[in-house]
Amino acid sequence: MSTTVAIIYHSGYGHTARVAEAVARGVRSTANTQSLLIRVEDIDQHWQTLEQVDAIVFGSPTYMGSVSAQFKAFMDATSHQVFAKGGLWANKVAAGFTNAASRSGDKLATLQQLSIFAAQHAMHWINLGLPPGHNSSTTTEDVMNRDSYFLGVGAQSNFDEGPELAPKHPDIMTAEHLGARVALVTHELAEGRRNLSLRRVA
Amino acid sequence: MSTTVAIIYHSGYGHTARVAEAVARGVRSTANTQSLLIRVEDIDQHWQTLEQVDAIVFGSPTYMGSVSAQFKAFMDATSHQVFAKGGLWANKVAAGFTNAASRSGDKLATLQQLSIFAAQHAMHWINLGLPPGHNSSTTTEDVMNRDSYFLGVGAQSNFDEGPELAPKHPDIMTAEHLGARVALVTHELAEGRRNLSLRRVA
Amino acid sequence: MSTTVAIIYHSGYGHTARVAEAVARGVRSTANTQSLLIRVEDIDQHWQTLEQVDAIVFGSPTYMGSVSAQFKAFMDATSHQVFAKGGLWANKVAAGFTNAASRSGDKLATLQQLSIFAAQHAMHWINLGLPPGHNSSTTTEDVMNRDSYFLGVGAQSNFDEGPELAPKHPDIMTAEHLGARVALVTHELAEGRRNLSLRRVA
Amino acid sequence: MSTTVAIIYHSGYGHTARVAEAVARGVRSTANTQSLLIRVEDIDQHWQTLEQVDAIVFGSPTYMGSVSAQFKAFMDATSHQVFAKGGLWANKVAAGFTNAASRSGDKLATLQQLSIFAAQHAMHWINLGLPPGHNSSTTTEDVMNRDSYFLGVGAQSNFDEGPELAPKHPDIMTAEHLGARVALVTHELAEGRRNLSLRRVA
Repeated sequence: MSTTVAIIYHSGYGHTARVAEAVARGVRSTANTQSLLIRVEDIDQHWQTLEQVDAIVFGSPTYMGSVSAQFKAFMDATSHQVFAKGGLWANKVAAGFTNAASRSGDKLATLQQLSIFAAQHAMHWINLGLPPGHNSSTTTEDVMNRDSYFLGVGAQSNFDEGPELAPKHPDIMTAEHLGARVALVTHELAEGRRNLSLRRVA
Repeated sequence: MSTTVAIIYHSGYGHTARVAEAVARGVRSTANTQSLLIRVEDIDQHWQTLEQVDAIVFGSPTYMGSVSAQFKAFMDATSHQVFAKGGLWANKVAAGFTNAASRSGDKLATLQQLSIFAAQHAMHWINLGLPPGHNSSTTTEDVMNRDSYFLGVGAQSNFDEGPELAPKHPDIMTAEHLGARVALVTHELAEGRRNLSLRRVA
Repeated sequence: MSTTVAIIYHSGYGHTARVAEAVARGVRSTANTQSLLIRVEDIDQHWQTLEQVDAIVFGSPTYMGSVSAQFKAFMDATSHQVFAKGGLWANKVAAGFTNAASRSGDKLATLQQLSIFAAQHAMHWINLGLPPGHNSSTTTEDVMNRDSYFLGVGAQSNFDEGPELAPKHPDIMTAEHLGARVALVTHELAEGRRNLSLRRVA
Repeated sequence: MSTTVAIIYHSGYGHTARVAEAVARGVRSTANTQSLLIRVEDIDQHWQTLEQVDAIVFGSPTYMGSVSAQFKAFMDATSHQVFAKGGLWANKVAAGFTNAASRSGDKLATLQQLSIFAAQHAMHWINLGLPPGHNSSTTTEDVMNRDSYFLGVGAQSNFDEGPELAPKHPDIMTAEHLGARVALVTHELAEGRRNLSLRRVA
């Protein structure tokens, strides 16, 4: 059976878009999985499609300690488009990523914000699933999950580098990992649901 | 196939224990599901068993804005018992509940703390999955999820009432709901995983 | 000496505006203190004035677990207008309030978001300073801080009541309390700074 | 006039103790200010003294995404020792620091936990007050606030280095900065309060 993972994101200068694209590649690396990349600017064309997808990954830069206003406008719009219509996203899979110039930069607060948002929609939150990265005298920044996030991806892009240079490769690989992980869990859930419902019917 | 949901909890005065028991009842209301109630005081007898369970629900009173020291001692012990042994709880299902005398009382911070803890263990966080409760002129406190939590259960027990009186019935029903929901998702995942792995083998 | 406390807020339907006005009344109840109510829609007329104020109280409804997109647009604008100009708000006093239809409704997450925002601006965060409210069998909702918030004001307005009815009087009194408290601490700090600098000059 | 800043901390292996000592040095670098270093293991000798201090800085390692159980035991004890006795710490100054092996490692969650704890005690939270650190292609880890925290100090110690090596000098300087900053604000508040009360008496 086939599943679809949507990635809804905002990117101010192109860095977060690169993370979003990496998540999508990770999704597509899983057999029988489609990815659907949606910029928040285009969200109004996609509300109906989103009712059908199996998973949604949310991504935003961290501005002043939380998601961008542009991304928040999308979040607020779900109040009418999704929540008030009876919880259209309930039981879908959710995950999140963010990007900022700083290693911490309060990016954890953004991931918390996204996970609470998913909770309000009764979605299942899939965490990053990687061990800590650069945390000893023998490691470098050239490892996955270098800054050691767990709720999702916390990418880092130097503020004086464009999206052709930042975020660096380890962050891109971390995002690909999240995409593949989300796709796998989405498959497991979809298979299990079909099986349980087939058995009930039989 | 059969699955097991463990509930690990601390209760200072018996109120949180009642919530834990309600979660366990909800778990058992689902076909083919075992519940395993574990007090944090007894955790050392259960580390090996926990490697085998499919889901773990975490519960603690909220003291001064976060889980009790007793529950935190359990959380800290997982660093050596679970995390350092290679992430023994990775990909298990997780969920959480808390109880305090106040409606808010910063209980959300406890649920956030539990969800971050689950993220460090690479578990899948299952949210409460209920709409807001008492939020209009026509509702009362006698509804499920009366104070409108989403990450998990936020029960409320008057500080001058013993566990035979508090938390009140709507909170108990909310906890039962969480248990049943966790059991269902745990089944879906277990079924899906078995199926996918059978197909790979065939 | 005279001090000024600004209140910057967004209100979708008028309820949060009533909380903002109550904060302003609390501020003015303190001798030698001016209040300055600013709607986020009007923020562009006030950037220069805000450089001169002694304290800023931030207020937003909680939508989907965090501040509204309109309020976030103001927060994001401070990145260029305040932060990048050298931290123009550093060492000012800050505080926060929010409003939603639910008792919890993840309003704590909004207060955390506001306090992290204030931290990025190096402001001093003044908490609510009230004991828990309605938390026993002998209390009712007719007490200040009824839902027991601590980082700031968490007001509650039934979704089927207009701003002429909601939030109810106890929440309004709670907001007045916050305003008066912020004004007092602002005075203490301003007095202390003047004194210490006079002594250095002398 | 003289003020006292207490630093209450737990340290599992000595790293957080070095941060605590740096905060104390920063405090003492301010004229007319005493520092009082208290290990949580010794807290029972200090409850009465703490009623008299002007500020308390809280510090704990981050274990599994929040303060250590040992530090939480102290936090929980304040419920009876401080909160229930009428809010003995109300209007004191508060601040916080933490340490872990990871750059993020969910240390922000620990700082949030400490700030909510301070809020429950009606204390005034003083943020770090430093700009972001290492966030461009031209910076290195050898700068203050290298990982860019704002609510407090987020120090980093490689897990394979003892406290004689970690955390590194920039983190120590960051902690000294916090101590000096807390001492300054504490002075400003103490001066202002004395002045306002003298004027009322006169």
